[in-house]
Amino acid sequence: MTLRGWTLPQSATGRSSIVAPPPWHYSGEIIAVDFTAPVDEVASLLPDGMKAVPEGTASVVFADWCSASDHDERVLLDPAVGQYHEAYVVLHAMRGDKRVGRVPFIWVDSELSLLRGQIQGFPKKMGQIAMTRPVTLGKGGVQKTPGSRFAAHATGHGRRVLTASVTLEKTADRLPRAATLPLVHTRLFPALHRAEPAVNELQLGTIADFECGPIHTGSATLEFGRTEYEELEPLGPLSVGTGYVFSMAFSVTGGKVEPA
Amino acid sequence: MTLRGWTLPQSATGRSSIVAPPPWHYSGEIIAVDFTAPVDEVASLLPDGMKAVPEGTASVVFADWCSASDHDERVLLDPAVGQYHEAYVVLHAMRGDKRVGRVPFIWVDSELSLLRGQIQGFPKKMGQIAMTRPVTLGKGGVQKTPGSRFAAHATGHGRRVLTASVTLEKTADRLPRAATLPLVHTRLFPALHRAEPAVNELQLGTIADFECGPIHTGSATLEFGRTEYEELEPLGPLSVGTGYVFSMAFSVTGGKVEPA
Amino acid sequence: MTLRGWTLPQSATGRSSIVAPPPWHYSGEIIAVDFTAPVDEVASLLPDGMKAVPEGTASVVFADWCSASDHDERVLLDPAVGQYHEAYVVLHAMRGDKRVGRVPFIWVDSELSLLRGQIQGFPKKMGQIAMTRPVTLGKGGVQKTPGSRFAAHATGHGRRVLTASVTLEKTADRLPRAATLPLVHTRLFPALHRAEPAVNELQLGTIADFECGPIHTGSATLEFGRTEYEELEPLGPLSVGTGYVFSMAFSVTGGKVEPA
Amino acid sequence: MTLRGWTLPQSATGRSSIVAPPPWHYSGEIIAVDFTAPVDEVASLLPDGMKAVPEGTASVVFADWCSASDHDERVLLDPAVGQYHEAYVVLHAMRGDKRVGRVPFIWVDSELSLLRGQIQGFPKKMGQIAMTRPVTLGKGGVQKTPGSRFAAHATGHGRRVLTASVTLEKTADRLPRAATLPLVHTRLFPALHRAEPAVNELQLGTIADFECGPIHTGSATLEFGRTEYEELEPLGPLSVGTGYVFSMAFSVTGGKVEPA
Repeated sequence: MTLRGWTLPQSATGRSSIVAPPPWHYSGEIIAVDFTAPVDEVASLLPDGMKAVPEGTASVVFADWCSASDHDERVLLDPAVGQYHEAYVVLHAMRGDKRVGRVPFIWVDSELSLLRGQIQGFPKKMGQIAMTRPVTLGKGGVQKTPGSRFAAHATGHGRRVLTASVTLEKTADRLPRAATLPLVHTRLFPALHRAEPAVNELQLGTIADFECGPIHTGSATLEFGRTEYEELEPLGPLSVGTGYVFSMAFSVTGGKVEPA
Repeated sequence: MTLRGWTLPQSATGRSSIVAPPPWHYSGEIIAVDFTAPVDEVASLLPDGMKAVPEGTASVVFADWCSASDHDERVLLDPAVGQYHEAYVVLHAMRGDKRVGRVPFIWVDSELSLLRGQIQGFPKKMGQIAMTRPVTLGKGGVQKTPGSRFAAHATGHGRRVLTASVTLEKTADRLPRAATLPLVHTRLFPALHRAEPAVNELQLGTIADFECGPIHTGSATLEFGRTEYEELEPLGPLSVGTGYVFSMAFSVTGGKVEPA
Repeated sequence: MTLRGWTLPQSATGRSSIVAPPPWHYSGEIIAVDFTAPVDEVASLLPDGMKAVPEGTASVVFADWCSASDHDERVLLDPAVGQYHEAYVVLHAMRGDKRVGRVPFIWVDSELSLLRGQIQGFPKKMGQIAMTRPVTLGKGGVQKTPGSRFAAHATGHGRRVLTASVTLEKTADRLPRAATLPLVHTRLFPALHRAEPAVNELQLGTIADFECGPIHTGSATLEFGRTEYEELEPLGPLSVGTGYVFSMAFSVTGGKVEPA
Repeated sequence: MTLRGWTLPQSATGRSSIVAPPPWHYSGEIIAVDFTAPVDEVASLLPDGMKAVPEGTASVVFADWCSASDHDERVLLDPAVGQYHEAYVVLHAMRGDKRVGRVPFIWVDSELSLLRGQIQGFPKKMGQIAMTRPVTLGKGGVQKTPGSRFAAHATGHGRRVLTASVTLEKTADRLPRAATLPLVHTRLFPALHRAEPAVNELQLGTIADFECGPIHTGSATLEFGRTEYEELEPLGPLSVGTGYVFSMAFSVTGGKVEPA
């Protein structure tokens, strides 16, 4: 029969499929840290047509996401499905005369996020991610107030890859670059019967309904760990910049593709 | 040398110990559901000296905790250490003429919580626990507003043991019993060279600095799963009562013990 | 620059890529159980051009794999990368006049296996899989001898989906169908800018160097669990057939594709 | 009522208890590496009455265990319960004129093992442990033959703590010290109402039915990782000695205790 499902597994009903098509909605808590990296190392992670900015600026972002899908209510209703953590690097780059972002490495702790990400061109791997979750009461946790320290780390294949912290100092009126640069991804799906990939194209997500809460900033720490599986250490960091803690929400309604 | 450490592992410094002594602080998000169970089944899970209440009332509580320890700052500072989820059953009981609670089954997803709990007499097992985390922005998650559905579930040894939900309707001015009954635990540590346990005593935690946020209530669902490892199914539920969603914080400063 | 990598993440060196191209090698321990399912339910999970066999025969297979990759030595060298468990259903079907197999549902506990599988058209999801591992010494485990009971189970999103066991009785001289039917997969990769998928094609793996050890058979048990995410329960099982325990190895050297 | 259960949780039947009393049986695959450490650092991890050997010898042991319990058949029958990995350090020491071993740090990936270990005085923490599993067929894995490389690593709280490998060269006729030294543990269970522990005693397990398969030896590598939670780095290693790969089985029938 003609099987249904936007992704595998397909069935007569389509309800076994892991991912339903967009719109997808995201509400999350963010911990982000700006850093600089050697420009040639940034360049070595950018696709044709993108250039490193001369300052070598980049960011690390941790996110504790709740997500939802217009075409699959289970994503919102089952916290084991829609919720996940992710940690990623964003390189600041130029594409022609436009500032863009590029995510060379990203870890998540959810099957749905892994595959939904790969479809968009996020190079997602599985990892263990821990983030200070803000609380509103008591002494068991950390509140979003000056002096509070928000920590985050990510581990892949049993190796710590990212370790960061932000100590809140004040609030800002501008979002960090990491949250505003349009991200240019590569959708890549190999072929099995020939060397050239079956799909190899650039993708820019269509974003709607962006919202964000108060933006807390402060001094930050950032360390990259040694790993056999990613090329993080060459990125330094050369210097560590401002840290940010804030809530953020947006929707992905689809994407535009261009030849790679 | 004389090794230091409140728990294993001990070392010259004591800093390898998993658990530091109280005070411990807790800040969390709670999803709770009241239910009734057959009175004789409740009785079969209570220690000598405690009686089931004739109504067979009981509760299931899910908690998303941040925790801290006065004697180990790493608990607050490292989100991989101090944060965890837990899910438990509280039986409402009488001890003499006092209303008390008894936790026959509890699951957590953290080594620290497992052992800190066993020391207090919480019969903690490892599990996977998922809970709707409230958000403040966007459509990716669920806000604490009327009509919102908060879901929670727990799995042990690969079997779903608890599945619950609460659909918010209004706010209440009273905490659920599950949060106010003093809990009577059994601290139990076996001996290896004789049949009688090395430690077998009742324990009541000393609680301080209790705080709670707005108490949202609504209709609830609750299911117990079949498991080879716990005696949950006999508890029913016979009926499912009110559901609660709220923030809560408190400290444990120590405990009183009595003979079992 | 021109980035390298058979899959994401791409980099100048290509060494961050999750999956390297075949040949891939597999050595594993298998627990398999034959069963029958309602023919129309089998049919509802088969793609155009494949027919259920009238007997409704099918199998469940659990595998404890070690894997290797000719183009990435880390897969063999790092046990956290190349080793994984998987559990799947194989429906026995006809494609024209050829007997084939179709895998409608499969769970794995490894990022590499998830993505390597999706590339081949295995509809892999993440799960927790436990299997009796044969031992050669002592009373702590189960040896491959008559009377031994091998158990296996799989859990997805906190729900037990498959529970099986085989009690060994004798050795056989024939492999189970589940291990010999050529598997016909659907490679499916969605587009983001249009409704039709970017890739939608049938794929048959090219298998080499098949080896297997002594084939132990015996009586079996099999249960499908209730789940919101897969359509397993309609498959029954109507009846449970022979169980098999054996070691198996093979290589995948590539694949042939055909229009879906 | 009088509740039953050797450990928590207790119930009328006792079948919810996590651990049943010994005898316990173990069948496993071992990867071990000898090393030397600074003698004063070894001494700083030994209890009163034990002395470091002047050579500073010690071992790291990884084990892939199947376990069983005479009083709880579920441990053998359910692979999710009885099977686990562990990784530990054994310091070689003198107690009076007897050579003994002491385990200062150990990680496991199972609730049952964690608590069964704490009862014996093993200072078990939760970790992620990966070990090359020997195979008998094919190119997907590693066979126990000269030239084969067995690798193992352990991670706690997202940090790699142990990384080891053994490249097989020949077979030996002697077990490594790590497998033959009687282990002296500290059983430690804190009190909540006073500073002195409720239980603090030395424990030596009573071992029976020891068996082992061919002992493969070869050159080894070993690295300790930086961690905030254990004092591993001071142990070096100063030098890395022989590596061992073998199968082993034994039973624990009880234990002798002495004052700490």
